[in-house]
Amino acid sequence: KKLLIDEEEYIREIRSGSRLHLAKAITFIESTVSDQQVIGQRLLKQLLPYTGNSIRIGITGVPGAGKSTFIEAFGKMLCDQGYKVAVLAIDPSSSLTGGSILGDKTRMEELAKNPRAFIRPSPSAGTLGGVHKKSRETMLLCEAAGYDVILVETVGVGQSETIVRGMVDFFLLLALTGAGDELQGMKKGIMELADAIVVNKADGANEKLAKKTVAEYKQILHFLAPSTPNWTTPALAVSSLYKKGLDVVWNTILSFQKSMLENSVWENRRKEQTVDWYKTMIIDRLYDDFFSSIEKKQSMKELEQLVRGEQMTVSQAVDELFSSNSKQ
Amino acid sequence: KKLLIDEEEYIREIRSGSRLHLAKAITFIESTVSDQQVIGQRLLKQLLPYTGNSIRIGITGVPGAGKSTFIEAFGKMLCDQGYKVAVLAIDPSSSLTGGSILGDKTRMEELAKNPRAFIRPSPSAGTLGGVHKKSRETMLLCEAAGYDVILVETVGVGQSETIVRGMVDFFLLLALTGAGDELQGMKKGIMELADAIVVNKADGANEKLAKKTVAEYKQILHFLAPSTPNWTTPALAVSSLYKKGLDVVWNTILSFQKSMLENSVWENRRKEQTVDWYKTMIIDRLYDDFFSSIEKKQSMKELEQLVRGEQMTVSQAVDELFSSNSKQ
Repeated sequence: KKLLIDEEEYIREIRSGSRLHLAKAITFIESTVSDQQVIGQRLLKQLLPYTGNSIRIGITGVPGAGKSTFIEAFGKMLCDQGYKVAVLAIDPSSSLTGGSILGDKTRMEELAKNPRAFIRPSPSAGTLGGVHKKSRETMLLCEAAGYDVILVETVGVGQSETIVRGMVDFFLLLALTGAGDELQGMKKGIMELADAIVVNKADGANEKLAKKTVAEYKQILHFLAPSTPNWTTPALAVSSLYKKGLDVVWNTILSFQKSMLENSVWENRRKEQTVDWYKTMIIDRLYDDFFSSIEKKQSMKELEQLVRGEQMTVSQAVDELFSSNSKQ
Repeated sequence: KKLLIDEEEYIREIRSGSRLHLAKAITFIESTVSDQQVIGQRLLKQLLPYTGNSIRIGITGVPGAGKSTFIEAFGKMLCDQGYKVAVLAIDPSSSLTGGSILGDKTRMEELAKNPRAFIRPSPSAGTLGGVHKKSRETMLLCEAAGYDVILVETVGVGQSETIVRGMVDFFLLLALTGAGDELQGMKKGIMELADAIVVNKADGANEKLAKKTVAEYKQILHFLAPSTPNWTTPALAVSSLYKKGLDVVWNTILSFQKSMLENSVWENRRKEQTVDWYKTMIIDRLYDDFFSSIEKKQSMKELEQLVRGEQMTVSQAVDELFSSNSKQ
């Protein structure tokens, strides 16, 4: 091993709150270099006993719903109350655009400067499973570093909400006013993943409309199965701009935590999430290993075309792909 | 090959409507014996050019929604209009109970006797991917045999609705009266898979309530993204008992087909469904191959316990599982 670091020092520094060491450890976890990954995993393993003590909150919403404004205001409020807050992002689109939803740090300037906050942009491109893995492990590192609240932001692209729902305790859907119009464009099933719907921008001339929207969401929620058993998903209005209603959101989350700890849903969900993650990683690994050769990938594409054109049955194409000398 | 059949004869007989030969071909497809599977696949390959000409309709609903009564009445109406109707079932629960939702043929006695109808119970237990594969291939065989309408029934267990949605053109949700109460117990996201919601048992004293329920569903549907682009999912009331409203359901499906053929959604969805199926089968095969040894399965379970108990990180467990001499 060429790369040597003082692991003891890293563990100590991360646990005593060094943001520099935490950031470096995350870089190891996110690295595509094998040596660095090994270090990242070794650090994580030693830190594992110190994880699990935060409240993990997922936040989603359409572009323009004001996610970063909300996170900035909400995060600042929590810091003021003495909490340490980490903000992560899962953004599968960054591989396409080269950008990242948290890449532009100026979007959360104030929070970024707060000594109680830690902001980490979305990991660089990779398979969805890869992003998933890195973000989960980053979350664990943040917990070991003493962050009490982890906010995981995501945009509604691909499977990102399902991934985030699968790694957090509480899932918050940030909405705009005008439920009827917005829901038409909202991703299917997203409302049924939410533990709270928060209508943002309830300020100024918009306030009245926001209240109407909350009423509309309440009406719809009445008909939907709740995201979490024994929990009634509320709809709330906030103004991130004027910092109104943020405390109600936080109290809602605390009351959720209290109930779910009492009926063991909290702990059971976390265990199931970890096991699901394990299973996803197995599938991911099988897939990556099988398609590690360019020829195999090429065969897969060629056979896909034959299947698509109905020149071959699916069973035959799969048999062909798995035959040892598959060339097509 | 010990087993020899006259393939030419099979193809000819199936295409000219022999239910006996169709049933036997399905048995080959469903067989767990390799030789028989090969025959099934060879038959399917030769029949592939004659597939794709039916309307594929998925039907789901909670137990008690009257699925079999509806299918019997609806299927009989179609037969009377000159259509040939095949009824299949996907029932992942049959592996647990040993039963099958269509196993009890008496449930559709009249339809079963109709010379224009063909009823096939759920394939026997297997992995979900296995059931999926068999049911899709059975559907293709029925199409080659000249069935114009394929009805695929499913109960709301596990992933069954998603599987059925992934193999049909039109997905119908059969509902009971009292939307508010029912939706609380309905599976998440199910409404957003539906191309029509049909409130059953709109007869006698129940008729008024059924109409109220239809209005409630319409109100909710207004807020949801449609299952199919450029389609407004309707809510309808029927009485399977008095055969009222069944023609409206059928006309809705025909009008859906007309629009979707015009805008190419029909064809594109079918192509995507086939490609998705191909990809699912690849994952399934990778999984089956990897876990073909009992030792590997055992390792997976043991490592899962360590992950669950937080004694090991997910990454480490996966690495351990994939190391060549994984024993734990």
